[in-house]
Amino acid sequence: MVNSSVVNTYPLSSYTFGTKEPKMEKDTSVADRLARMKVNYMKEGMRTSVEGILLVQEHNHPHILLLQIGNTFCKLPGGRLKPGENEIEGLKRKLTSKLGATVPALVPDWQIGECVAVWWRPNFETIMYPYCPPHITKPKECKKLFIVHLSEREYFAVPKNLKLLAVPLFELYDNVQRYGPVISTIPQQLSRFQFNMIAK
Amino acid sequence: MVNSSVVNTYPLSSYTFGTKEPKMEKDTSVADRLARMKVNYMKEGMRTSVEGILLVQEHNHPHILLLQIGNTFCKLPGGRLKPGENEIEGLKRKLTSKLGATVPALVPDWQIGECVAVWWRPNFETIMYPYCPPHITKPKECKKLFIVHLSEREYFAVPKNLKLLAVPLFELYDNVQRYGPVISTIPQQLSRFQFNMIAK
Repeated sequence: MVNSSVVNTYPLSSYTFGTKEPKMEKDTSVADRLARMKVNYMKEGMRTSVEGILLVQEHNHPHILLLQIGNTFCKLPGGRLKPGENEIEGLKRKLTSKLGATVPALVPDWQIGECVAVWWRPNFETIMYPYCPPHITKPKECKKLFIVHLSEREYFAVPKNLKLLAVPLFELYDNVQRYGPVISTIPQQLSRFQFNMIAK
Repeated sequence: MVNSSVVNTYPLSSYTFGTKEPKMEKDTSVADRLARMKVNYMKEGMRTSVEGILLVQEHNHPHILLLQIGNTFCKLPGGRLKPGENEIEGLKRKLTSKLGATVPALVPDWQIGECVAVWWRPNFETIMYPYCPPHITKPKECKKLFIVHLSEREYFAVPKNLKLLAVPLFELYDNVQRYGPVISTIPQQLSRFQFNMIAK
C-alpha cells in the first residue's frame, strides 16, 4: 500500500484500452439489488465494498476513470469483499476483474494508495452517509474508496457491455444529479492531494 | 504536527467556555471583503488562509466547533496567513486569536493534524473550488482546512460578538444552503478518520 499525498498523473493517451467479455450486473433493478443485499446480510453480516479512484490527466487537470453502464449510470471500479478478505487484496482482485486483461501478464500491478472516503448504508435502502448515523448499531454496508496509483503505461480491458470514461474533476464537482453523492464529492476528497501532472 | 487517522473526541461537557473582547469582522459587506482581498493581492500576491476543524462528541457522534456571527453565518476558526508564514504556526496563531484565553497559560497547546481539504478562489468572487480550475494560472486564494486534535480538557475564550456552536456531522451533511460548500462537505472529508469517542 502506497501512503503518499503526491499523486503522479499521466496523460490519458499513455494508456491502452481493449475489450473483454461482458460483466453483467447481478441485478436488473434497484429493488432486486436491495433484496439480494438483504439475503447476503443474513448469511454474512455487513457488506464491505471497496472501490478504486484511478486518475489520469488531460490539459493539466485530473480526470477519474468511471465505468458507464447503459447511457447514464456511472460507477467506480470495485465491488464487494468476500467475508474476511483483506481490503487491499480484495480491491486488487476487483480491479483485475473489472479492468484487467484476461492474459495475466498484462494485468496492471495495482498500487493501492490512501483511503479517501468511507460511506455507510444504515438500512437496506439506496441512501448512504459519510458517517454511521447515530443510533445505528448494525449498518448494512461500509464502502471504502481508495486512490489507485497508476504507472505511466497500462493496458485496460473493458467489459464489452461497459464504457470507460475519463471524467474531469470539474465535471464531477457539485453534480450530484448526474453522479450521485459518492462520486460527486470525490473532488473535495482529493483536494488535499498534490497532483504531479506528468506530460508525455 | 500530528499525522494520525485516529481522532480522539471528548464530550463537549469536558470543555470550559468563557468570553473575551469582541473580534469584529474587518468588512461589513461581501463587496468590501472582496475589494480588500484585491488590494491585499496587489501588495502580497495570493492569499493563503488556514482553518481548524475542532472536534468534540455528543451521544457518540462527532460535532464540529463553529463560530457563529449574527444569527446565520457560521465559520471555522482560522484566518489569513502573513506573507511567508508557516501554515501550522499561522493556524496556531489564528486559533489563539479566535479561541484562546487572554492569559497565555490558559491557551490550549494546539495540536494540528492532517490537512483534510484545500479550496481555491480563482477570481475576486465568493465562489471557491476544491481544485484550481483549468486555465487559472493566478488563483487569488488558497484555503486549507486542518484537523485540530483537542486534549481532554481545554478552556476556550469566545469573542463576545460571536457564539461558539458544536454542530453534529449529520446537521452539516448535505446542508449547503445553511453552511456553504466548504463546511457542508466536512463530513465527507472526515469520513476516512476513525473517531475514538471517549466518554467522561
